[in-house]
Amino acid sequence: MQGFVSFVGSGPGDPELLTLKAVNRLKAADAVLFDDLSAGPILDFARPGADLVAVGKRAGRPSPRQDHVSRLLVDYARGGTRVVRLKSGDPGIFGRLEEEITVLRAAGIGFEIIPGVTSASAAAAAAGIPLTRRMEARRVQFVTGHDVSGGLPEGLNLAALADGAATTVVFMPKRTFARFAALLTDAGLPGDTPALLAENVSHPDQRLTRSTVAALARDLGADDSRAPALILYGALAGS
Amino acid sequence: MQGFVSFVGSGPGDPELLTLKAVNRLKAADAVLFDDLSAGPILDFARPGADLVAVGKRAGRPSPRQDHVSRLLVDYARGGTRVVRLKSGDPGIFGRLEEEITVLRAAGIGFEIIPGVTSASAAAAAAGIPLTRRMEARRVQFVTGHDVSGGLPEGLNLAALADGAATTVVFMPKRTFARFAALLTDAGLPGDTPALLAENVSHPDQRLTRSTVAALARDLGADDSRAPALILYGALAGS
Repeated sequence: MQGFVSFVGSGPGDPELLTLKAVNRLKAADAVLFDDLSAGPILDFARPGADLVAVGKRAGRPSPRQDHVSRLLVDYARGGTRVVRLKSGDPGIFGRLEEEITVLRAAGIGFEIIPGVTSASAAAAAAGIPLTRRMEARRVQFVTGHDVSGGLPEGLNLAALADGAATTVVFMPKRTFARFAALLTDAGLPGDTPALLAENVSHPDQRLTRSTVAALARDLGADDSRAPALILYGALAGS
Repeated sequence: MQGFVSFVGSGPGDPELLTLKAVNRLKAADAVLFDDLSAGPILDFARPGADLVAVGKRAGRPSPRQDHVSRLLVDYARGGTRVVRLKSGDPGIFGRLEEEITVLRAAGIGFEIIPGVTSASAAAAAAGIPLTRRMEARRVQFVTGHDVSGGLPEGLNLAALADGAATTVVFMPKRTFARFAALLTDAGLPGDTPALLAENVSHPDQRLTRSTVAALARDLGADDSRAPALILYGALAGS
């Protein structure tokens, strides 16, 4: 008897931003493996008696080993369990989904992916701005502010990222944005490019700060707050 | 007495990919203005008696004038109505949201934006692939394949778009992809870069075609089908 794994995007945090399909999968699950950012009231949709297993990582704290998460997934599914692997936002965007899929494929365990609302969309919506603009901001891009070691990723495409006509959303930006902004400026992005810092998007303590790339780089230099955040920059960030 | 407009992302088409908040807004609406791509069973969530108004545009067919849509929004809201403006996918991504917001602001009418699941996330999920890969595909970008005239947009950032290490999703790609692929190839993207054509994502007649940039450019040259589509290219499209 073989189980099945549903990778489910939990959206940015507000339980009302779960999809109907996500809710259905949570209600049917025998076990829910969740990250820190998809905890809280979202788990109230799981049925009483389901195993709720925290496997979370959060920016600024050590992650549980990825191979440990993958082994848990396989162990639950091998027991014939309906497993929900809950990931914040959309599971395909900076969710380390591929590593878990690879392990399931190797173990011959079936899975599905239920897409979710990415926090980039939720941040823009909360600020009342679109991510694209007709005739002008016709490209939107998402990048991560840190690699597995916690530093700024290497091999950034600065011609892509220093394009102020695009809308760029940096995930997990806080600890590296000062260095990132210096690279962008060197590559030609004006320091006064509008930027929006969005913290705790869609949560009751959501905070939006309208600023510029240069000013955010300065202000975040000494920021060690652990509130999950995004930075959105480009012409539209100032609208 | 003043109404209120909720811009609501309907997701890629499967009604189960609506968020709980989207369903709540549909149930409460007095009027629902919808695009073609967010029609069908999604509208069943609206209460009986609500005005359902098609204002849709669809790739390959003439759009209703944008100013007509904006005037309808203002007229309904001025009548004290709770209006839902339903947009396929996420309303902030290639949804011409800004033009409608601008008109509402000028008219002093309140609004909110409810983010939705973008069809880019749904296409990748359906294909069982993530949009990002740790250490490698750490940038994902969305672009539109046509501007208001129906042609390929001008001023494309080819250094950004010909980067095979990123994952790129082209919205409404069909009629211009042959020309777009030629520009990408000139800018250095190998023709054998993996590409995925996703048609009618999340609908019962969804179709996924795994190919390459060069082969899709050749095959789509003569394609005048009007099924809504996305093309996803980059290393991950082949996984």
